[in-house]
Amino acid sequence: MTSPTAADYSTVFDLPTPALVVDSAQLDRNLAALAAVRPGRRARPHVKAHKCTALASRQLAVGHDAFTCATPREVVGMAKAGLGADLLLANEVVDQRRLRELAELDARVTIAIDSKATIAAAATAGLKECLVDVNVGLPRAGCAPDTAGRLADAARTAGLTVRGVMGYEGHAVALVDRAERTAKTAESMELLARAHDLVGGEIISAGATGTFDCNALATEIQAGSYALMDTAYAELDIPFAPALTIRTTVISVSPDGDYAVADAGLKALGMDHGNPSLPGYQVWFCSDEHTTFSSESAALPEVGAAISIIPAHIDPTVAYHETIYVVAGDTVIEAWPVDLRGW
Amino acid sequence: MTSPTAADYSTVFDLPTPALVVDSAQLDRNLAALAAVRPGRRARPHVKAHKCTALASRQLAVGHDAFTCATPREVVGMAKAGLGADLLLANEVVDQRRLRELAELDARVTIAIDSKATIAAAATAGLKECLVDVNVGLPRAGCAPDTAGRLADAARTAGLTVRGVMGYEGHAVALVDRAERTAKTAESMELLARAHDLVGGEIISAGATGTFDCNALATEIQAGSYALMDTAYAELDIPFAPALTIRTTVISVSPDGDYAVADAGLKALGMDHGNPSLPGYQVWFCSDEHTTFSSESAALPEVGAAISIIPAHIDPTVAYHETIYVVAGDTVIEAWPVDLRGW
Repeated sequence: MTSPTAADYSTVFDLPTPALVVDSAQLDRNLAALAAVRPGRRARPHVKAHKCTALASRQLAVGHDAFTCATPREVVGMAKAGLGADLLLANEVVDQRRLRELAELDARVTIAIDSKATIAAAATAGLKECLVDVNVGLPRAGCAPDTAGRLADAARTAGLTVRGVMGYEGHAVALVDRAERTAKTAESMELLARAHDLVGGEIISAGATGTFDCNALATEIQAGSYALMDTAYAELDIPFAPALTIRTTVISVSPDGDYAVADAGLKALGMDHGNPSLPGYQVWFCSDEHTTFSSESAALPEVGAAISIIPAHIDPTVAYHETIYVVAGDTVIEAWPVDLRGW
Repeated sequence: MTSPTAADYSTVFDLPTPALVVDSAQLDRNLAALAAVRPGRRARPHVKAHKCTALASRQLAVGHDAFTCATPREVVGMAKAGLGADLLLANEVVDQRRLRELAELDARVTIAIDSKATIAAAATAGLKECLVDVNVGLPRAGCAPDTAGRLADAARTAGLTVRGVMGYEGHAVALVDRAERTAKTAESMELLARAHDLVGGEIISAGATGTFDCNALATEIQAGSYALMDTAYAELDIPFAPALTIRTTVISVSPDGDYAVADAGLKALGMDHGNPSLPGYQVWFCSDEHTTFSSESAALPEVGAAISIIPAHIDPTVAYHETIYVVAGDTVIEAWPVDLRGW
């Protein structure tokens, strides 16, 4: 099938459901809010949250020309879309075939390393630049702060330029209380600062949407979710609001009128943060292609009615979809391919 | 990007990770086990579980030429792959653009209806045949059993041929105790039988992998998961075993050796049934592109090692992937596009 274009659907009423719908004005407000606090290279927007080069181009338009990626394919797609001024693959990769593809791109590519094996893999493939990935409290990738200097030395010996350090305070980013979030972030950044002292380099890359304005150390923030947002992050006191909904159609109403069924389910929604929200309704459960819900007060919608769903977690939601429809009010103004899916 | 072929990867050691890997022999055993009990039209395999026409062709090869679909795109893809002898869209759809596309296919298409609105939508679009979808206990689509006859009359008046009824005992299919599962299924099928008495027609379509051999009423079983299986269904006493794993690469091991990280996460795994399993290891948590795990006994694998993950829920897992790699031992013998994704 060919990719849809905005010309195929003049209004939201024409859209095939389930459909990712982004409010253009709210997206712009979110992008402006980050750029106001973290202009230019002070933010390195993470494309994993939207997997969409067209959306990345809007992030470039407000001044960010350096981007964070989570997968080799995201790096390749960004480079081929002309967005490769400074791409960080903030993840460890040892696959030589894919690392060589990255090394051959017409783009500046920096990769995370946290072990001798990942240094050797990057150097062998011909990559030129790296950051030392430091564990700052979240049990995932990253070396111990005290070993970061030795790894940096090993990377330099292997021929890599070490641009600095990165560390993700993932255990802090979603804490609703700002003081607690700030304190936990500061603890993590003490570890990252210690590592940076040992490593050197001009970059201290960290953070996320939740800590963009309370991480005092990071030279750049890897914010991703801020552009589209989700119900999990919406609980925080940050100046970003949900810009994405999933437009669905009611396909069935129960005989007794106690529930209705919308045509978006487990294959249209990342479910790791739980059920999505339907403003004004109560979600009962999701099946593969359905969400069953009831009304908190008034009557249920009729079969054929449109219902907007807000996903609980934006990243794995977008990864299920082929297209983001961008709207101004009810008018579909653009159809953006979700072109960075896969690995 | 072009789709990979088996020729790109001669062995599993070459595969880009995360990769869906299907054991060809186990798949064949699963297909044979269903066909032995439910030969030919006694089963209507559900393609939503694998979204792959190449896998559907294997189901055809063991005798099933009628298939169940959950989305319009699954119907279109099956028809265009020459698998359209008898396709049931076991779901309500009111979108005229997509219904008309289904009506114009070179295929036999039957659609579920459960309301006057869905009857009108199907008839207006030019579809010819339907099943009356009956609620048999799961709060999702389906009319009340007692109104099924009136809906069938309305469908006939609108020009549709009513082939019979369908009803999904979704609240029974995963009950681990066979006696309980059988009893709950029988309760549901009493409702479906009552509806069928009012509707007529030669088809009583119901069921699932979990009830394929304990649903005494259904003329055909809509089994999907049986082909590939997952950890949820693996708890049941049914003659199917997991044929699919996700091959991953270890990309990081913690400094203290207390955990390791594999390169498959929330965007490679349907998470609604919880965390995946790593035989021999304990899963801590999944992030977007990572699974953090520890070892129950022995040492952790090294960076670069391959680890196989078994997903908790097959359907939303497969929907994230572009390709299913089919293996015999370590040899990659086929690469099947997951060509029925989306809506």
